[in-house]
This record gives sequence, C-alpha cells and structure tokens, in this order.
Amino acid sequence: MTKRVLRVVLQYDGTDYVGWQRQATGTSIQGLLEDALRPIEGADVTVHGAGRTDAGVHALGQVASFRLTATIDPQALARALNAVLPLDVRVAAAEVMPDDFHARFSAIGKVYDYRIVNAPFASPLVRRYVWLVVPPLNIAAMREAAASFVGEHDFVAFQGPRSHVRSSVRTLRRIEWEGTGGPEDPLVLRIEGDGFLRHMVRTIAGTLVEIGLGRRAVDDIASILASNDRTRAGTTAPAAGLILREVLYSHKIAT
Amino acid sequence: MTKRVLRVVLQYDGTDYVGWQRQATGTSIQGLLEDALRPIEGADVTVHGAGRTDAGVHALGQVASFRLTATIDPQALARALNAVLPLDVRVAAAEVMPDDFHARFSAIGKVYDYRIVNAPFASPLVRRYVWLVVPPLNIAAMREAAASFVGEHDFVAFQGPRSHVRSSVRTLRRIEWEGTGGPEDPLVLRIEGDGFLRHMVRTIAGTLVEIGLGRRAVDDIASILASNDRTRAGTTAPAAGLILREVLYSHKIAT
Repeated sequence: MTKRVLRVVLQYDGTDYVGWQRQATGTSIQGLLEDALRPIEGADVTVHGAGRTDAGVHALGQVASFRLTATIDPQALARALNAVLPLDVRVAAAEVMPDDFHARFSAIGKVYDYRIVNAPFASPLVRRYVWLVVPPLNIAAMREAAASFVGEHDFVAFQGPRSHVRSSVRTLRRIEWEGTGGPEDPLVLRIEGDGFLRHMVRTIAGTLVEIGLGRRAVDDIASILASNDRTRAGTTAPAAGLILREVLYSHKIAT
Repeated sequence: MTKRVLRVVLQYDGTDYVGWQRQATGTSIQGLLEDALRPIEGADVTVHGAGRTDAGVHALGQVASFRLTATIDPQALARALNAVLPLDVRVAAAEVMPDDFHARFSAIGKVYDYRIVNAPFASPLVRRYVWLVVPPLNIAAMREAAASFVGEHDFVAFQGPRSHVRSSVRTLRRIEWEGTGGPEDPLVLRIEGDGFLRHMVRTIAGTLVEIGLGRRAVDDIASILASNDRTRAGTTAPAAGLILREVLYSHKIAT
C-alpha cells in the first residue's frame, strides 16, 4: 500500500505536558498525536516533530510529519484530530507533502519567542506564557548584549545537560526584543536560527536577564561564547516563557 | 478607631471561580479577597466590587473598595494580598480613597471586552478568554448593527434572568469591533456604558453574532430594543469571552 507523507502545524499550551517527546510517565504532545492518529490509520503511526520542546514549553507553530496509508483529505484529518485532542493542543493546518519530507530533517530554521513580564505582577490572562521578573530590567543593555549572539558560534556554553549532538555550532540570524514588559504586554525575545541546542533559548534569555538586572556586563556574551564553558553562562530561564513560534522550510507551510 | 477607605484594582482569570460574589458553594473572587484581608485587619472585612461578574467571566480592571482600621501602606497591602491570593487573581494597584468612595456607587461607567475567535480553532494560548465561532462572520454587518445600541435605551430585552434593578435604562457611549478574529488575534467587541444589566454584554454579543451569521437582519436591533421583550434578542454568549476591562470614576485610578 502506498503511504503518503503528511505534515501538521500544531499549537499547544505546554503547561500540563511532559514535553513533545513520549516519556515513560506523563502525557506528551507526540503521544497525544500518535494516539489520535491510531484509530484513523487502524495501526500505529510514528510522528516526527520538528522541535523536541521540553516540559512546559508552548508552541504556536510546531510541525510534525508522519506516513499514512489511510485515504483522508488533509482538512478532514485536521478536523478529526481536533475533535479528539484536548483543547490545549490544536492542529492549525494539515497538508500532503513530497515523499522525502521530514518535519525535523527538512527544517532550515526555527523561530522561538521568549516572553517576560517585567512588572510587580503578571496579568492572570498571560501568566502561563511568561516569566515574571519583578526588578526593573535595563532593556537597552539587554538589546545591546543580544546583538553579540548574531552569526555563527559554538553555543556549547549555552547548552543544557543531556544533549547528544555532533556539533554545537549554530547560526542565529535574528535576535530582537519587542514589547514593553507590562503586566499584559510581555517583552518578547524573538530568536531565529538554523537550529537550537537543548535549553539554548532559555539559557540565552536567562543570561540576558542577568545583564538587564546589572549582575553582568553587557560585553560578557562574547567571552562566554569564546569560553565554551557552560558554567560561565547564566541560569536557564523557566520553560513557561518559551514558545516555538515557527519552523522554517524551503517551501511555505499552509496555514 | 478611624477606618480608611481603600480601593484595589483586580485582574482575574474567572475560569475556575463562581464569579465575583460569594456563593453558598464554590470559590468567589470576593471571598478570596475577604479571606486575604482578614488576617491583615484581624477582623472580618466586607469588600464591595464595582461589577458583579458572573461565573467564568474575567477581569483586567475590576475595582473593589473596603474599610480598614489596620495601618498599612497601600503598596505593602498590594504585595501582601498578592503573596496569598492564587496567581489567577492579582492586585494590580491599591490606594487610599476619600471616605465617601464606594467601588460600585461611585462608578460612572464601565468598559467591557467581548472576545471572539472566528476560525476553525482557537489558539490554546487564548482559548480560555474567547468564544470560538467557527462559521465565517460578516463583520461589516455586525459593525453596522452594533451602532444601533449607542445612546440611551431600555435594555430590558437584553437582560438576563434573576435581575433586580429599579430601572433597565442604560446609556452606551461606545461600541466597537476591533481585531481580526484569527486563532491568536480575537475579534474584540469593546463596549462602554454608564452601567450594564445582568448578561447584557453577553446578550448583545450573542445577538450581534447571529447577525454576523446571517440568521438575523442588520436592522433587527432597533426593533428588539423597542419590543422590551427578552425572547426577541439572541442567545447569551459564553462567559469565557467576557472581560471587565475598566471601571470609570470621576477621578483617575492609580495603576
């Protein structure tokens, strides 16, 4: 039987999940999607995600691919999946792809947002999707420091534990701060790169916040990058503030 | 002992609460606030809210007032309350008011937002704070119909059950549709008036959506208002989409 390759764009609130990847215990996004696909296919389906988001991390543009023998129109598939998935996990788009498409290996880049409320409190309407930093941040310093990350670097100093990658060299194409940081209007660190190491965005955010609090110098970034030493970078910012916004491919995704 | 009048501005995610007002069972916002004030005052404190939001309704600018004998700086009071309130309920501001201030009776108006996602799905990051309407809405028709509400009218046809008000005449100063209605960018019905009857904003929203779906004529509003007949208006839109945005007083609130 011929199998077609499909890809879906997923949005999720990661608060209550163990992350993208199936774990021994707890509910994963991958597991939810595979469980929802099984009755449609009448057999087990293995799903590949573009980004293996950690526990508590959210997505507005996660991409997953899988092979199906079952004949089903992509729009009908999206509706069928949304009918059984929890409201915390939504299929935003679905389409048939060329046979060699793979959500992770075909990706040419990703865009992440890291969101911070810099105020005495976070609005209850955004609090699940932000890091609340109460002392005032020097945003100009954080903006200046962020610029040091642009370009190709070995990001091993900004990598989390239990990473298994051949190379820790990555290229960041864009890193910008947007928004005000008010209780309802988070400050957003938007980062685009060709790929990201485990905890990389969160460690970049944590280090920039230490600069914004005046605990580090603005020009620290270049020397941390050069050190290749994880103990030199700042703390890992909380998962709640991180959103996988978009996965980039050489051909446009339907939305 | 002299008692000072204080007012607090509150934000809350109403999803898990029975509404503003204390009920026989379930957790109310008023109850949470009174419970948090009791140890500070060393006695029971009665709190008056500007708007008695229903179960599931949210707030970004609810205002409450109460009398305290205890000497405490308003900023310290806000911090003390936020330390014990759940993260779903936040004190955004606190200040000492003139002796005759009362959150409800001193109010000269209120601003509500009713939020709608008009798409096949609502983004998991906003879904608790919107009404999902899947069939395409004719926003131009909804905008035209909304204009009929502006001005002084008897809104008895748009009033919910179990209302006990002397007069159902209210003046709407402004009613506007903003936003696109996309999965992450809700369509917002912003309404400002001198006061609102129970379920009034939700019945206005429900009726306008029926016009947007083509189930009613654009010019229905004037005749429903003139009928004074609740059975003529549309359905009551879900609580989740409603947000008490601001309470207006003749003197500015600190934020």
